[in-house]
Amino acid sequence: MEFTHRVVMIGFGVVARTLLPLLLKHLKLSPAQFVVIDLADRRDVLEPWIAKGLTFVHERITPFSLARLLSTHARAGDLIIDLAWSVDCFDIVQWARDNEVLYVNASLESWNPGDEMERKTPLEKSLYARYARLLPLQQRWRHSTTALIDQGANPGLISTFVKTGLLDIATATLRENKFARPAARHLERLLEREDFAPLARALGVRAIHCSECDTQRANVAKAPDEFVSTWSVEAMWEESISPCELGWGTHETWTPPAATRPTTGPGNQIILPQMGLNSWVRSWVPQQEIVGMLVTHGESFSLSHTLSVVARGRVVYRPTVNYAYMPCGDTLVSLHELRARNYELHPRTRVPTHELVAGTDTVGALIMGHPFKSWWTGSMLSIAEARKHVPGANATTVQVSAGVLASVLWTLRNPRQGIRLPEDLPHSEILATAAPYLGELVSIRSDWTPLSRYRNYFSEETAADVDHQDPWQFRNFLFRP
Amino acid sequence: MEFTHRVVMIGFGVVARTLLPLLLKHLKLSPAQFVVIDLADRRDVLEPWIAKGLTFVHERITPFSLARLLSTHARAGDLIIDLAWSVDCFDIVQWARDNEVLYVNASLESWNPGDEMERKTPLEKSLYARYARLLPLQQRWRHSTTALIDQGANPGLISTFVKTGLLDIATATLRENKFARPAARHLERLLEREDFAPLARALGVRAIHCSECDTQRANVAKAPDEFVSTWSVEAMWEESISPCELGWGTHETWTPPAATRPTTGPGNQIILPQMGLNSWVRSWVPQQEIVGMLVTHGESFSLSHTLSVVARGRVVYRPTVNYAYMPCGDTLVSLHELRARNYELHPRTRVPTHELVAGTDTVGALIMGHPFKSWWTGSMLSIAEARKHVPGANATTVQVSAGVLASVLWTLRNPRQGIRLPEDLPHSEILATAAPYLGELVSIRSDWTPLSRYRNYFSEETAADVDHQDPWQFRNFLFRP
Repeated sequence: MEFTHRVVMIGFGVVARTLLPLLLKHLKLSPAQFVVIDLADRRDVLEPWIAKGLTFVHERITPFSLARLLSTHARAGDLIIDLAWSVDCFDIVQWARDNEVLYVNASLESWNPGDEMERKTPLEKSLYARYARLLPLQQRWRHSTTALIDQGANPGLISTFVKTGLLDIATATLRENKFARPAARHLERLLEREDFAPLARALGVRAIHCSECDTQRANVAKAPDEFVSTWSVEAMWEESISPCELGWGTHETWTPPAATRPTTGPGNQIILPQMGLNSWVRSWVPQQEIVGMLVTHGESFSLSHTLSVVARGRVVYRPTVNYAYMPCGDTLVSLHELRARNYELHPRTRVPTHELVAGTDTVGALIMGHPFKSWWTGSMLSIAEARKHVPGANATTVQVSAGVLASVLWTLRNPRQGIRLPEDLPHSEILATAAPYLGELVSIRSDWTPLSRYRNYFSEETAADVDHQDPWQFRNFLFRP
Repeated sequence: MEFTHRVVMIGFGVVARTLLPLLLKHLKLSPAQFVVIDLADRRDVLEPWIAKGLTFVHERITPFSLARLLSTHARAGDLIIDLAWSVDCFDIVQWARDNEVLYVNASLESWNPGDEMERKTPLEKSLYARYARLLPLQQRWRHSTTALIDQGANPGLISTFVKTGLLDIATATLRENKFARPAARHLERLLEREDFAPLARALGVRAIHCSECDTQRANVAKAPDEFVSTWSVEAMWEESISPCELGWGTHETWTPPAATRPTTGPGNQIILPQMGLNSWVRSWVPQQEIVGMLVTHGESFSLSHTLSVVARGRVVYRPTVNYAYMPCGDTLVSLHELRARNYELHPRTRVPTHELVAGTDTVGALIMGHPFKSWWTGSMLSIAEARKHVPGANATTVQVSAGVLASVLWTLRNPRQGIRLPEDLPHSEILATAAPYLGELVSIRSDWTPLSRYRNYFSEETAADVDHQDPWQFRNFLFRP
């Protein structure tokens, strides 16, 4: 594919740095077509590209500078790749639409998300509120210039993994005659039509995790005043201290007592008055149980929304969807130090790349409740393979960049699609672009349930917390001290 | 001091390895006077000492082998240094008394502590039950051969730090005229007499933490199947998964709902049906707030027991005493992996020594509630200084060994004292022996309270959990997600 317009990259952190060489290769672009805007001075890392004509603008995009900065550097037909962590999505999407500039990002951000954390209610702090605002825009702007939101790895590729997983589960269900004839016929039709919400319902899917376990590690000691993350430090920090949110399934019989159930918008989520980094759930990646953080993420909203089945105006089916993130060791320690710092970010930060000596980022969809109990579909990318694709990157940034790359290619081919979320995209096409960068692509069954390895050491305290009748109740996933 | 009898060391883990050269130096012993018994084959690390005459016995001490093994190697007047993590203290203390063999250890262990974890009640699993059994023995065996229990760093030196801290607080209180004349007179008398329980009461001490923050770190990546601890891996694992226990102050107005309050024994503790590694409290070490694990430890029992004031058969004063342990980063990660492993220990273990490149183990007594609010007395030992004392050791093992060394010297000078706990020892003498190995010895005031840096991000959920009237309530220390 050839693209003759300009590409404006906003934010040049570690993901953008990984993405740039992939874009140059896939789009046959010249560095002179690129403008990079960043609030930090990135001239050192950009130096080889600047020498070849790339324009670097060292300026912060704020509500006041946004229109001026973008008008200076982007014209109709150009593409904005927004990987910054503090540019409000609504303001920039509005500008891009008005100016017919293509737009992609890897998460739905807002201005200064950490502001007034103590004053706002969980709903005001929630991602839910932002998506509830996005949906009507999506309806209104159907054939505007394309703005593709949330297409990184997770959110992003995870939706592709969910679709692939559902198709694989359905295929195996039919092949192994798990369903009696009428139910099998119905399933066959849904499989042919790739009608994912009724398909998930027909399969009996109850819960979906984006389950991630990052074992990347370095032979360099993390200092106590240093926050280490394998992707954006600021974005990791911000989402970790945000309230815990999850897509809330129609099968749930127990709701956490302090949960907020929004009364405006689609009502597909609950919001808990506790930070993601303090919210833990049991989950599974091949081949181990993990205890991951239930951090708020776009896919919990968009997947649970897309997989809802509505009949006569009422939601009759929705799976529970949440993130279960076991970050790398140095991040786990950084997050604990953050608790002792009352959640103020460390003075120093580091994204490990060259210093990593081993480990894999395993990220995928754990789909549960169907005839095989659990099924995991996703990417297992080792640091060794990741740096073969992009020297100086790590597995996490390559996975995210692969998602953004797929997003860019699709957007350029489909420039008048209005606002799109990952669930709206053709999953095979997206996966075909990303797959070469994702290491081992796995889609396998597992008989894991949150109770299969559960041992109760304090029955006097916690017996009431477990539902042995239905293993897929959220209460069974919740890790309690 | 010269000692002509034999020394039998049980367990030759990393603390024993650090202790051995200190003993040889301080006691002018010959290696030929040493017998080392360990269930693991330690011939490789013992090789230089074996060459000089040390006897190594590769055998596990069990209820069945105990008498045979000890009778073979120890006679009246000899000394047993028990640093094993699974030899029952009562059985070995009984044997030592019957055979007039001196005995010291650094913690009160039992046979196979992890057995039947799911069946036992918190009280049955508790350290409390063991101490409640020890106290009557202590009364009965007043002038038997000395058995000094729990004299490592914590438990052990921490009691010395508490006494030193209380004396320093009292001295500063008087010097700075914090008390009116009659109260000051009373305090003066208690200070002179070193009458610690009424002294703590007169000062208004409400809570005492053994607060520890270990920042030792290595330029070697921890593998996911490896449990890393700066001291005994097995002992760390065992205490971390044991129920949370703490000495319970008379000022507490709120008790955790699930707490067990024992009805037999001195009743100075509460036991919570949750593991220490899942129980977090705010605490402070110079000069930072920490969020530490409330792991069960002997000093919580013995300090809160010793500092109780009884009037007319009723406890009228007792401070809350608990551990707040922020272990090193690699241990934090190991502990989190343990959750995902359902608390089964990792297949591989490592105690970092040579590979450590930086960091300090800061361990001491945080004494709170008096006119200066907080006061911290303890040891800050860097890895650099630790390995000057004992090459191949780390800061933690040197601190523990310094406590055991002091214990050995005192025991040899006082061979007919029956069962003793750290609070029974002359603190100046103990500290004088240990001090050269403890790095920076600190005794400083701080205006820290658990509420001084507390920010409430979710007022709708947690407002009721904080007592603003009395900052020293346990509920204010509790870290809640």
